Amino acid sequence: MKTIIGKRSHKAGLPPGSLVPVGPARDAKINLTVIDYDAGGFNQMEVERVEDCLPYRDTATVTWVNVDGVHDPELIRVLGEGFGLHPLTLEDIFNVDHRPKMEDFGDYLFVTLKMLYPGADGEEIVSEQISLAAGRNFVISFQEAPGDVFQPVRERLKKASGRIRSRGPDYLAYALIDAVVDQYFLILENLGETIESTEDDLIKGTEEGVLDSIYLLRREMVLLRRAIWPLREVIGGLEKSESELIDHSTRVYLRDLFDHYLTIIDAVEIFREMLSAMLDSYRSIISEKMNSVMKVLTIIATIFIPLTFIAGVYGMNFEHMPELKQPWGYPLVWLVMLALAGVMAVYFKRKKWM
Amino acid sequence: MKTIIGKRSHKAGLPPGSLVPVGPARDAKINLTVIDYDAGGFNQMEVERVEDCLPYRDTATVTWVNVDGVHDPELIRVLGEGFGLHPLTLEDIFNVDHRPKMEDFGDYLFVTLKMLYPGADGEEIVSEQISLAAGRNFVISFQEAPGDVFQPVRERLKKASGRIRSRGPDYLAYALIDAVVDQYFLILENLGETIESTEDDLIKGTEEGVLDSIYLLRREMVLLRRAIWPLREVIGGLEKSESELIDHSTRVYLRDLFDHYLTIIDAVEIFREMLSAMLDSYRSIISEKMNSVMKVLTIIATIFIPLTFIAGVYGMNFEHMPELKQPWGYPLVWLVMLALAGVMAVYFKRKKWM
Amino acid sequence: MKTIIGKRSHKAGLPPGSLVPVGPARDAKINLTVIDYDAGGFNQMEVERVEDCLPYRDTATVTWVNVDGVHDPELIRVLGEGFGLHPLTLEDIFNVDHRPKMEDFGDYLFVTLKMLYPGADGEEIVSEQISLAAGRNFVISFQEAPGDVFQPVRERLKKASGRIRSRGPDYLAYALIDAVVDQYFLILENLGETIESTEDDLIKGTEEGVLDSIYLLRREMVLLRRAIWPLREVIGGLEKSESELIDHSTRVYLRDLFDHYLTIIDAVEIFREMLSAMLDSYRSIISEKMNSVMKVLTIIATIFIPLTFIAGVYGMNFEHMPELKQPWGYPLVWLVMLALAGVMAVYFKRKKWM
Amino acid sequence: MKTIIGKRSHKAGLPPGSLVPVGPARDAKINLTVIDYDAGGFNQMEVERVEDCLPYRDTATVTWVNVDGVHDPELIRVLGEGFGLHPLTLEDIFNVDHRPKMEDFGDYLFVTLKMLYPGADGEEIVSEQISLAAGRNFVISFQEAPGDVFQPVRERLKKASGRIRSRGPDYLAYALIDAVVDQYFLILENLGETIESTEDDLIKGTEEGVLDSIYLLRREMVLLRRAIWPLREVIGGLEKSESELIDHSTRVYLRDLFDHYLTIIDAVEIFREMLSAMLDSYRSIISEKMNSVMKVLTIIATIFIPLTFIAGVYGMNFEHMPELKQPWGYPLVWLVMLALAGVMAVYFKRKKWM
Amino acid sequence: MKTIIGKRSHKAGLPPGSLVPVGPARDAKINLTVIDYDAGGFNQMEVERVEDCLPYRDTATVTWVNVDGVHDPELIRVLGEGFGLHPLTLEDIFNVDHRPKMEDFGDYLFVTLKMLYPGADGEEIVSEQISLAAGRNFVISFQEAPGDVFQPVRERLKKASGRIRSRGPDYLAYALIDAVVDQYFLILENLGETIESTEDDLIKGTEEGVLDSIYLLRREMVLLRRAIWPLREVIGGLEKSESELIDHSTRVYLRDLFDHYLTIIDAVEIFREMLSAMLDSYRSIISEKMNSVMKVLTIIATIFIPLTFIAGVYGMNFEHMPELKQPWGYPLVWLVMLALAGVMAVYFKRKKWM
Repeated sequence: MKTIIGKRSHKAGLPPGSLVPVGPARDAKINLTVIDYDAGGFNQMEVERVEDCLPYRDTATVTWVNVDGVHDPELIRVLGEGFGLHPLTLEDIFNVDHRPKMEDFGDYLFVTLKMLYPGADGEEIVSEQISLAAGRNFVISFQEAPGDVFQPVRERLKKASGRIRSRGPDYLAYALIDAVVDQYFLILENLGETIESTEDDLIKGTEEGVLDSIYLLRREMVLLRRAIWPLREVIGGLEKSESELIDHSTRVYLRDLFDHYLTIIDAVEIFREMLSAMLDSYRSIISEKMNSVMKVLTIIATIFIPLTFIAGVYGMNFEHMPELKQPWGYPLVWLVMLALAGVMAVYFKRKKWM
Repeated sequence: MKTIIGKRSHKAGLPPGSLVPVGPARDAKINLTVIDYDAGGFNQMEVERVEDCLPYRDTATVTWVNVDGVHDPELIRVLGEGFGLHPLTLEDIFNVDHRPKMEDFGDYLFVTLKMLYPGADGEEIVSEQISLAAGRNFVISFQEAPGDVFQPVRERLKKASGRIRSRGPDYLAYALIDAVVDQYFLILENLGETIESTEDDLIKGTEEGVLDSIYLLRREMVLLRRAIWPLREVIGGLEKSESELIDHSTRVYLRDLFDHYLTIIDAVEIFREMLSAMLDSYRSIISEKMNSVMKVLTIIATIFIPLTFIAGVYGMNFEHMPELKQPWGYPLVWLVMLALAGVMAVYFKRKKWM
Repeated sequence: MKTIIGKRSHKAGLPPGSLVPVGPARDAKINLTVIDYDAGGFNQMEVERVEDCLPYRDTATVTWVNVDGVHDPELIRVLGEGFGLHPLTLEDIFNVDHRPKMEDFGDYLFVTLKMLYPGADGEEIVSEQISLAAGRNFVISFQEAPGDVFQPVRERLKKASGRIRSRGPDYLAYALIDAVVDQYFLILENLGETIESTEDDLIKGTEEGVLDSIYLLRREMVLLRRAIWPLREVIGGLEKSESELIDHSTRVYLRDLFDHYLTIIDAVEIFREMLSAMLDSYRSIISEKMNSVMKVLTIIATIFIPLTFIAGVYGMNFEHMPELKQPWGYPLVWLVMLALAGVMAVYFKRKKWM
Repeated sequence: MKTIIGKRSHKAGLPPGSLVPVGPARDAKINLTVIDYDAGGFNQMEVERVEDCLPYRDTATVTWVNVDGVHDPELIRVLGEGFGLHPLTLEDIFNVDHRPKMEDFGDYLFVTLKMLYPGADGEEIVSEQISLAAGRNFVISFQEAPGDVFQPVRERLKKASGRIRSRGPDYLAYALIDAVVDQYFLILENLGETIESTEDDLIKGTEEGVLDSIYLLRREMVLLRRAIWPLREVIGGLEKSESELIDHSTRVYLRDLFDHYLTIIDAVEIFREMLSAMLDSYRSIISEKMNSVMKVLTIIATIFIPLTFIAGVYGMNFEHMPELKQPWGYPLVWLVMLALAGVMAVYFKRKKWM
Repeated sequence: MKTIIGKRSHKAGLPPGSLVPVGPARDAKINLTVIDYDAGGFNQMEVERVEDCLPYRDTATVTWVNVDGVHDPELIRVLGEGFGLHPLTLEDIFNVDHRPKMEDFGDYLFVTLKMLYPGADGEEIVSEQISLAAGRNFVISFQEAPGDVFQPVRERLKKASGRIRSRGPDYLAYALIDAVVDQYFLILENLGETIESTEDDLIKGTEEGVLDSIYLLRREMVLLRRAIWPLREVIGGLEKSESELIDHSTRVYLRDLFDHYLTIIDAVEIFREMLSAMLDSYRSIISEKMNSVMKVLTIIATIFIPLTFIAGVYGMNFEHMPELKQPWGYPLVWLVMLALAGVMAVYFKRKKWM
């Protein structure tokens, strides 16, 4: 729940651009990886100090700095100032509760995304913020924690033959965003399977726990939508941006990415409809059960209450009850009672209660 | 369910434009049909090798290449490169889970659609992806499996007199899309009939299975909407496109096609409203039944419980119960009980429970 | 139901502009009426052959051709070609399941509308398609069957003093559309009265048949909305059209017509809200009744079940039941039972169940 | 209800601009008040004949003609023609069922509004149509019946010091609209109070009549929205109008008026949400009551039915029932029954039913 | 509730710009604080008379006048006229029920906001109106009551090093709005916690009071949305304003503020969805409970009613009941009854009612 609205209140009153941690504190060491490449060469290195990244900034080659952790304000500040990032950008990177967005600062484009991956227990979705700043010849990417989502991009960069090596930082940024969006498909597949199996449970009639599953799924959908929905503005904004930082040949890939976004949103909407249909279905099943319970009660009660009344009548101790004296009294009462039960049964059959 | 969000996760990390199969694998042989025509001549042939299509590309006549199967990445790649298609186009053709869309690549227009036809068992709707690339003097169409949806277009091309022969590839592409859209009317008619008969069942009171039917229909509507809804952008995009590939005289046909689209969407929306009204109706019927069940129970119980109590009283074994000794005791009790039942009945009549 | 999505499937594959009947077949003779007028003169005649209309086309006077029936493709084709109508226009005229629309073909404006009138039994709404083509000096109107909706326009044309005589075909087309829209008010009044009387039934508590009425009304609203909603584009399109066929002075009348449209749509929306409020109300009444039924059952059962138990206890046949021997036993049991019933009654009074 | 869709059907077929009464007939005398003013002077008079107004039209001073009644077509026609109003404007003035709208006729601006005031019995809202035509140096206002809503404007005009005297007819028209809109706040306050007191009733549990109140309020909201909603186009249209009849300095007041409109719409929306929340709340309360009724029934029945059964067993008349002979039989049965009741009670406590 | 639509009716008829109190009367003394600063100097003083503020207006330094109270029309009028504010602005400042808005008066920008803070009892949200007028070299801020929300801004102004000192009044206005918006996060956190704890209560099954909490929360959401929603136009309007009063460098901060707004609106929407899901959940839990209550009732009644009937039969006093004489009669009846109960139990097990 804490992800819905972070603890930002203690920031109230501070000047904008202040770097105060918003997410949970982390002590992990921050890894800085610098990849420097062009069509001709590729060079990957781990650097210890932020200052070691800066020389690559001014080379003609494309420089990709990846930062595995955003819990050190000083590091972000130094790196940001080195690459000419605006204080508000630094605040956005630092504040891991941010809404996905794209912003054009003239010298660089800034993109914030949510990376989603299944949690350790395989059930809950974990959300992590990814920030990208793409300038004229550099891309800086920030992850909340070390992860391997960008590994395939690195692999493609290593191979001299790939298209990616001959393109600029705009294409690299596109590739990184694409890697994040590809993860969403994985999440959606998992969700789809959970929804399917819950639906099967519902149909099979094992409705215990189904309600909880549906509510859990609905809640995950809310979180999912929150991460995915604003991508429309991010990807659409990049595609339609008039920034000269985005090459014309990259736009067709961004358009493709936007199609992926639309496919994801379609799936999310369909899941929502399915969940709401399942809830409807669940309620109908419950009310139908209730109905059949009521019918059984009514049939039993309606048949036996009058019979019990008759038995009660002849259990009365009046001295003058002539029927009691007759030898045919007892069999006749049985006959009457059976006839009554039969009439009731026919009535219920006609009413389709039985 | 697999059609909602395909297994794309194993593509995560691959460069865009990679041709990795998304749909189920198929081993069927792929048929390539080439039709070459202009106002003066018509020539149809089956070709064995992809390379045999390419010579027709450069002729002044209109060339239509139809490919019956998209499970062979190599074939698609060779054909695509031969006709100058962008790698992302090839990926879209190959990936049969794509959302319908229209894209203008300058040299050609690319359109992806869903073809819908009733399944073998006559119940479920089967969806198949149709892709079209329309260039200056060629149209390439891709189907997932051999089918006869384009047969009428072929017939019209054969006839020397038809309007279609004297038009360019834009009109051919329009005719192919029109053939696909015409199929939707068939699907909608079937759906309409199923909805009608379900409604009749509901009115006749045979409500068993009605709920399942409604949920099945709702689900088909979701899939249908997913296939049809994006057509707005596809057809509207073609109509409003500024591409010089679309002749002015074709636009009036595209506008007509857009009207068909609107008619279909209207029908889909009306079906949705009818389904939701049927669900409402179903629930009201169920709750009304419940109500009448409850009333019967209440009437029976309310009449007999007090009577049984009276009988119980005179079944007590106290030694000093003067009533028991009186000869009029028994008849009087009967009178009291009948009077009580009568009062109750009048009460229920007034309350309109009986 | 057949009006929701007509049988169009047998048209699949035919070239656009094919004139295949969509509506039910009709054998009635088709009447052609030609009215030729200008400020100075008025001339009305019935013509036998289509060809007889054509000479009027080229006169300077305004020519109005009214066709009472669209089931003869040949007639429509000859007339259409005589007046220079596009094949798609002819198809739209012929296909009486069309969605209302306005289209500008340069030489003429084409409008399709639904005429609504109460059915023979006074309950169901019947829908008929009206098509209009308005050119530089002619208007052609098509009705599905002979009707008198245009009679008042004819009367106004006859009178030499009317404004309509000195205006062009655009004003005539406006007058014809206005005549159709005026009919909608009649339909809405009828609907409004039915809704009111249903509401009265609901309030008076005679809720039998109310549910059916509401569902019938809802269904009529769906059909109504389908006919009326697209008028926004039709009338708005005419008003904002840049076609030189529409004189500036006519636009103010179109604006007025658009106001009528807004009034109608307002009424439709209010009816929808009223119907949904009535459904809500119906459900609340039903559940309140259920509630009161349950209360009666509970009161009766809760009071008498314990009393019956007490009576049952003293109906047991144990030899050693000292109470049974006491002369005050029987009266005391009565006292206890009355006290118990009294306590229960007070409890129910407090709970407001009685 | 008659206000939802007026009896317009008998107008069907008449030429537009025909002055046929739509509202109820009225015989009251129509008062014409002429106020002629500029910064220097103020002159108010009652005139007998319409023709007496016309001389003021051509003076340089601002002329305000107020007409208290629109049931005399002849009067409206003469006045309208005298001031150069379009026949459609006259029809709109005459037809008191019109949707609020603003229209620019070049020489004058025409505005139709609904004036709302609480009915005589203080419950129902009464709606009356106000029409305004504002030209270069005149304003004509039409009310359905004499009323004092414009009295404060008259007072301000009388005072030489007011801003209004030095402004043109556009400001006067604004002031009149403002006076009407100010009335809406009064209506909303009353509604707000009724909603509040209904809510209090609901919370206090006196839910009798609450349902009726809610439905009545919902219905008033529908009528209210119908009157208020179109004001967006009226006031927004005036503010954004490019007509030279509206002075730049007046626009800031129109913007302010638009803010009032937004505040009113906000309140209406909040009322709607509150009403729907109250309905929800009502239903929850009802179903909770039902629940508690059911619980009481279940507790009583579940405890006593088994006990009654035991009593019944020992009321059987078998000759060989050894328990009946034992002196401890009766006390033991009591013990068993008490123990059973105790177990049940504990079970219900645990289930939180008691 | 009074905050939904204030008592404005007694203003009806007054000229616009009239300063009539709308909120509750207050007698508190109004504090005027003037802060005069530029990059070089900072000067804060409390002034007694309004006239003492005016000299600062014409200095080149930025002047911030803060007014702690708006219940003195005379003070507002003098101050407003001194700084050249429009009468409508003064009315808006004075009327504390205003909808948040931004207005460009050319010489100054006017902004009205709602400040929200938790009430004294920590439960209810209190809303207070903040108005800002930002001119070429001054900002005037109005609060309804003294408060410390602007204190941090004052602190930052005091520090010579801050960015804020070297910026103009536009940045100061931004900083003040930012301070107000930061408060919203605090409110949202509190709300989030209340929602969480209510949800926990719901899950734990202590559903007493949960319904009330949900309705209270829903109501607070309505008020919250009313305060926050119009901010889109306020902040977006400032960001996109073409006023020269807003420096280009300030726009990036306004964009950042707009992001905060979006985050807040996201949270509000998620809260709404959570509340509605909780209501759904609550209803499902209630109906499930009802269901289980009904099942227990049915099981008990259905098992014992037939048994009681059997016992009743053998409690009848017929003279000729052969079974009663048999020594095996009593044990056999017991056997039959146990068998019947067993069959019932198996039936219920199968139906999953037990």
